[in-house]
Amino acid sequence: MPETPVANIGVVGLAVMGSNLARNLASREGNTVAVYNRSYGRTQTLIEEHPEAGFIASETIDEFVASLAKPRTAIIMVQAGAGTDAVISQLAERFEPGDIIVDGGNANFHDTIRREKDVSETGVHFVGAGISGGEEGALKGPSIMPGGSKQSYETLGPILASIAAVAEGEPCVTHIGTDGAGHFVKMVHNGIEYADMQLIAEAYDLLRTIGGYEPAAMAEVFAEWNQGDLESYLIEITAEVLKQVDAETGEPFIDIVLDEAGSKGTGVWTVQNALDLGTPVGGIAEAVFARAVSSHPEQRSAVQAVVTSRPTPAERYEGFEDDVRAALYASKVVAYSQGFDEIIAGAAKYGWEIDKGAVAKIWRAGCIIRARFLNRIVDAYANNPGITTLLEDPYFAKAVADGEAAWRRIVSTAALSGVPIPGFGAALSYYDSLASKRLPAALVQGQRDFFGAHTYKRVDKPGVFHTLWSDDRSEIETEPSTH
Amino acid sequence: MPETPVANIGVVGLAVMGSNLARNLASREGNTVAVYNRSYGRTQTLIEEHPEAGFIASETIDEFVASLAKPRTAIIMVQAGAGTDAVISQLAERFEPGDIIVDGGNANFHDTIRREKDVSETGVHFVGAGISGGEEGALKGPSIMPGGSKQSYETLGPILASIAAVAEGEPCVTHIGTDGAGHFVKMVHNGIEYADMQLIAEAYDLLRTIGGYEPAAMAEVFAEWNQGDLESYLIEITAEVLKQVDAETGEPFIDIVLDEAGSKGTGVWTVQNALDLGTPVGGIAEAVFARAVSSHPEQRSAVQAVVTSRPTPAERYEGFEDDVRAALYASKVVAYSQGFDEIIAGAAKYGWEIDKGAVAKIWRAGCIIRARFLNRIVDAYANNPGITTLLEDPYFAKAVADGEAAWRRIVSTAALSGVPIPGFGAALSYYDSLASKRLPAALVQGQRDFFGAHTYKRVDKPGVFHTLWSDDRSEIETEPSTH
Repeated sequence: MPETPVANIGVVGLAVMGSNLARNLASREGNTVAVYNRSYGRTQTLIEEHPEAGFIASETIDEFVASLAKPRTAIIMVQAGAGTDAVISQLAERFEPGDIIVDGGNANFHDTIRREKDVSETGVHFVGAGISGGEEGALKGPSIMPGGSKQSYETLGPILASIAAVAEGEPCVTHIGTDGAGHFVKMVHNGIEYADMQLIAEAYDLLRTIGGYEPAAMAEVFAEWNQGDLESYLIEITAEVLKQVDAETGEPFIDIVLDEAGSKGTGVWTVQNALDLGTPVGGIAEAVFARAVSSHPEQRSAVQAVVTSRPTPAERYEGFEDDVRAALYASKVVAYSQGFDEIIAGAAKYGWEIDKGAVAKIWRAGCIIRARFLNRIVDAYANNPGITTLLEDPYFAKAVADGEAAWRRIVSTAALSGVPIPGFGAALSYYDSLASKRLPAALVQGQRDFFGAHTYKRVDKPGVFHTLWSDDRSEIETEPSTH
Repeated sequence: MPETPVANIGVVGLAVMGSNLARNLASREGNTVAVYNRSYGRTQTLIEEHPEAGFIASETIDEFVASLAKPRTAIIMVQAGAGTDAVISQLAERFEPGDIIVDGGNANFHDTIRREKDVSETGVHFVGAGISGGEEGALKGPSIMPGGSKQSYETLGPILASIAAVAEGEPCVTHIGTDGAGHFVKMVHNGIEYADMQLIAEAYDLLRTIGGYEPAAMAEVFAEWNQGDLESYLIEITAEVLKQVDAETGEPFIDIVLDEAGSKGTGVWTVQNALDLGTPVGGIAEAVFARAVSSHPEQRSAVQAVVTSRPTPAERYEGFEDDVRAALYASKVVAYSQGFDEIIAGAAKYGWEIDKGAVAKIWRAGCIIRARFLNRIVDAYANNPGITTLLEDPYFAKAVADGEAAWRRIVSTAALSGVPIPGFGAALSYYDSLASKRLPAALVQGQRDFFGAHTYKRVDKPGVFHTLWSDDRSEIETEPSTH
């Protein structure tokens, strides 16, 4: 137990993410890191394996708190859920006004808003911080999305900046907004990640089923794509996964992996909250649903038992590979655009001032969706912070227009070939919905007025109207329907 | 105020739905109906306008309760939300064990579960009952989906059966399951309704944009479709809406309606709960999102300002109209199948024994999605109650197979023509996902193992595995990932 409080930062929870984050902190000039874990064994292992870190280890929470210099700053790295609440109250009871509790787990932002409200009443700061980059990111430099008060960021910002990934000379951390803003943005990050992965998976399926490429050849295609606009960590690791050969069978690794994709919940949250916000995020939703479909083997085998014939895949045509690349890029633009729409809508609903360009900047390194592409989003918001969708930005408008014909050919060919493309298809329909002068929503509104007197507006004058459908079918001006 | 308790049923809340339901009850042999509204003016209007109903009217809640014969049975018809809780506690305080409180509003089933738990502790029954059919259905015969205890249904069932719509001689009411089961099934009904309407809207858009049909001609097409497999209330009213002419301008009504579709929340709930349940409902989700896109005019006009060229719609080909019909039917099968999947998943999670065939039966009349088609669903579950998806039922499998080529042509043509078809497209991709022997979910799982050590299963042996991607890339057997 230390005699005097010497640590400028503490970490509670020393599973892999917490240990790696603590080691990352300890490796940076100027940091002295206190560590605490509920079971001391894990703490001992960490300090024995990493003497170079100079950790200040404590057996009890009281010792841990005593080892922190003021303002005390502690990052909680435990499994999101009830355990987080327990640790927060242990710290909150012992911390003093001005001290800072950081939750670095994947909390639901609604929980973070609640916790911030509770803790801040005592004068202690509570910061929900999204940390992306997995175990390796935690160790070598993650992308960090802290919420909480601006004041807390004065102390916390430099510490987080010291461990964050660096993109073009800038640390991948920024104060996202108050209370739950950081965890909200991290949630949307993960939703976008789902979409990006699904779109890549569809590109793979198209190359394989229609293109006839073997995994090793596809690895080369993805590696080549990684030299252009699509350059990103996910494309890079796709090439790595596709070139992997299973040692046991000599088969391509991808062919021995069971085709049932798991998920951990943040994709679901992203779509559920988008629905609350009225933000269409079909590109993200279809990715979440695609994993769900894959995880219903009982339905898949039942349907396959009754489906006696499948369409013959189209022949690979000249330029097919380029078409897939263009369709992937256009669909990706849509998915990111929908994600940023959700951030804008969330900021409006929850009262956060979120700098969209700054969010794109801190995603350029450290996190799973890191990509060259994000610089284009930084530029778009720098050029015009008031754009209503990324699709109206001149660069993205041109990017989509350039790929549009290819995108349409791919969606068309996939439909005829029986290749499922929920992500590509939803993205194209979303784009066509925005770009169409007139939507069949008018018919939906007419149906709603017919069966439920839900009223409608007219294109030619203001007001709210209802047609007396079961009477003489004349139109009356009325109040908006409330039922 | 009545001297003796004479009413076998009471209605609280006399806005249009409540008044109509009360009149419906009063019109049936054997019912004496007590009515109560917070403001007495509305009660007076109702009893003055409908002396034939013989309503027992009360000015106060005490009088209302006193006017009910035991076991007292009262249906609450107020706007869902906090008002419902207030009325429930007013009644619960005055009711005695064995009495029955029915919430006939569009409550969230989570609220209904909570309320049933609270109220039933006092020995009073609480029944959340979904009532579909709008104002006209309430008056002439709705489809009714009651939850709550089996015991309460012994009293309530005959009363509800007296006012329900009748399909092929059977009243459209059944005990759905305990506590929130009724409101859950009503929620899914509404989600299916969203999907059905969106699919019809897409068919309309295709007929118009590619087919070149005028609204009056389309009205005839829909009226003709209403003679076949697609026969349904929604197709019927689509024909009515399309043949309507705006009196003021002489233009087709559909063309003067603003193309922004509103929504009231149950579609959103259906998708949010499907996400919680891990049930893919892309057909419903895309319908909810399509309304949301339509309601973002600022994004639509911004995109239309930068999109300088739109694809030329394909020429209408021989058989195009039949192709649209077939694509609509196949997509509709998928949407209903997804809805029933959600009911099955909800029943499993919340411990309800739901008879899927009985649900399909009570939707055959009275409600918005009433359709000939529902008899096929009744048959499917009668033939094999254990089917994992409607798509494995022989009738539906053949229906989809018969329409499959047309469905593919329509999705393909729409993609090339710039017609947004989020519903048709999502339904086809869902079908192709189930029917494909192998999904690219394997790649997603490979990526997840690469960046997050999320592990994978193999196709050739049991166990959970992880590849040491940042080491020598050998494979280890491991525990399932928990992070």
